[in-house]
Amino acid sequence: MDLLGAQISQLRTTLGESPGAKKVLVVYAHQSAGSFNASAKDAAVEVLTAQGCTVEVSDLYAVKFKATATAEDITAEVKNPEHFRYAEETRLAWEEGTLADDIKEEQRKLTEADLIIFQFPMYWFTVPGIMKGWIDRVLTSGYAYTQEKRYSQGLFKDKKAMLSFTTGSNESMFSATGINGDMNVTLWPLQNGILHYCGFQVLAPQIFWAPSHVDAEARGAMLKAWRTRLQGLLGEAPLSFTPSDSFDGDKGFQLKPEVQEKHEGREFGLTVGTHQGKRLPPNSQIRAGV
Amino acid sequence: MDLLGAQISQLRTTLGESPGAKKVLVVYAHQSAGSFNASAKDAAVEVLTAQGCTVEVSDLYAVKFKATATAEDITAEVKNPEHFRYAEETRLAWEEGTLADDIKEEQRKLTEADLIIFQFPMYWFTVPGIMKGWIDRVLTSGYAYTQEKRYSQGLFKDKKAMLSFTTGSNESMFSATGINGDMNVTLWPLQNGILHYCGFQVLAPQIFWAPSHVDAEARGAMLKAWRTRLQGLLGEAPLSFTPSDSFDGDKGFQLKPEVQEKHEGREFGLTVGTHQGKRLPPNSQIRAGV
Repeated sequence: MDLLGAQISQLRTTLGESPGAKKVLVVYAHQSAGSFNASAKDAAVEVLTAQGCTVEVSDLYAVKFKATATAEDITAEVKNPEHFRYAEETRLAWEEGTLADDIKEEQRKLTEADLIIFQFPMYWFTVPGIMKGWIDRVLTSGYAYTQEKRYSQGLFKDKKAMLSFTTGSNESMFSATGINGDMNVTLWPLQNGILHYCGFQVLAPQIFWAPSHVDAEARGAMLKAWRTRLQGLLGEAPLSFTPSDSFDGDKGFQLKPEVQEKHEGREFGLTVGTHQGKRLPPNSQIRAGV
Repeated sequence: MDLLGAQISQLRTTLGESPGAKKVLVVYAHQSAGSFNASAKDAAVEVLTAQGCTVEVSDLYAVKFKATATAEDITAEVKNPEHFRYAEETRLAWEEGTLADDIKEEQRKLTEADLIIFQFPMYWFTVPGIMKGWIDRVLTSGYAYTQEKRYSQGLFKDKKAMLSFTTGSNESMFSATGINGDMNVTLWPLQNGILHYCGFQVLAPQIFWAPSHVDAEARGAMLKAWRTRLQGLLGEAPLSFTPSDSFDGDKGFQLKPEVQEKHEGREFGLTVGTHQGKRLPPNSQIRAGV
């Protein structure tokens, strides 16, 4: 533990928190307190709090979270108004402390958190617009990633993150022989391209398959299973991704020849994305240890 | 051509449009008129207009397009305020003509269009929040899809749509041996789950690989190639997806046994998503006819 870490730990103890207490941020996107997503969020807050965790919730619709990446996200003058480039301008603003207050507040919560849970209904095979806005605006260049610090060298490698979501379609539709296609493919851009990109240890997603298609009893069973999982969530092993040093930064971040050779005879590719033209490793975006 | 189609065609002729004239909608998301994305959008407007097309542009940042799916999208009283369900409430509002004016206006443009081009910088492996907001809000249940009319039976099967976007990473990083993983995987949820889901014939994406990493001359060459492609765009064959009737709606929309059997001996799966546990068909989300 570095000096700053030790000081934060001491401060937490002074404030009455136990040294091992974890902080959790739930980024939550549903319009209605009567929804299944609200119940899933409430279950996470309740079970994790009972375990001694400090849980904060960012209720995006309740705070009317701004979902658009604009120059208003910078409170100072922008550097290049003729050719405004969001990633560059916000990186500078982050360095200078001139990001908009709502972004600063979300970054404070994220910085303090050991685990982030994204709770949402899947809209069009991904997160709703309001949650994409959170991702676009809060995961600022410099703060959440740099060219050097990303993927397994990412800035948030000591944090965990996971997706917890409801679908509109049944599980069979999201299989490798189903009309929507393999859910592992749908999850790759989210789990690799956002969460793992920032370095997060990605916990297996919690997928609530089509709760609106089943009765109240079945929905209750889904929530009960989630509560059970939440008990051990912080101890779970994360999903597997290929270590960054398997890729050669001087050669377009391609797999190094020695890594390719090592895997040449194997049946499956390394991951859903870096599949090397082989069959996809089954369920690698859904279960840990596969 | 059905009766309504004939009447519309006649009306267009009366209005001075040539019978074969196509209507194009460009849904455009960049903050700056000085950007590469703006140039790509301008090129589309110019080349397609010169061909006799009528081109409309939805400039999402310019109109401060609302990116969040909320009860305010319905101008009448919502049916179930205790448990607000966006898809159901907006479907009813669409039926009753009580959707918000900005949604109605985008739906008018979309209804009239023969081709929709989404022009955007890729943010976090997908569209920016503001464009996701357009997708969430404009592609209303009932208007853009129903349980019966989706995928190759989709409501927009007589229209074409395509993604045109810039990346921050180089092409090699988005290969099947690259650190970001195969671009075909990243495109699947967007092209299958949104565009093809609504029935659109999906034209091959126009991918501008990392224009910010190259000099002005190379960027100019990218735009020139795009202008050349635009000349023949409306005549291009679309990407291939599996016909809806290959799936059994009574059995969880799984591939029918006879379709599975027919493809049993083949090396590659049917698509990136419905890959049947086989190797992914190379570049099926990037090039037509593969």
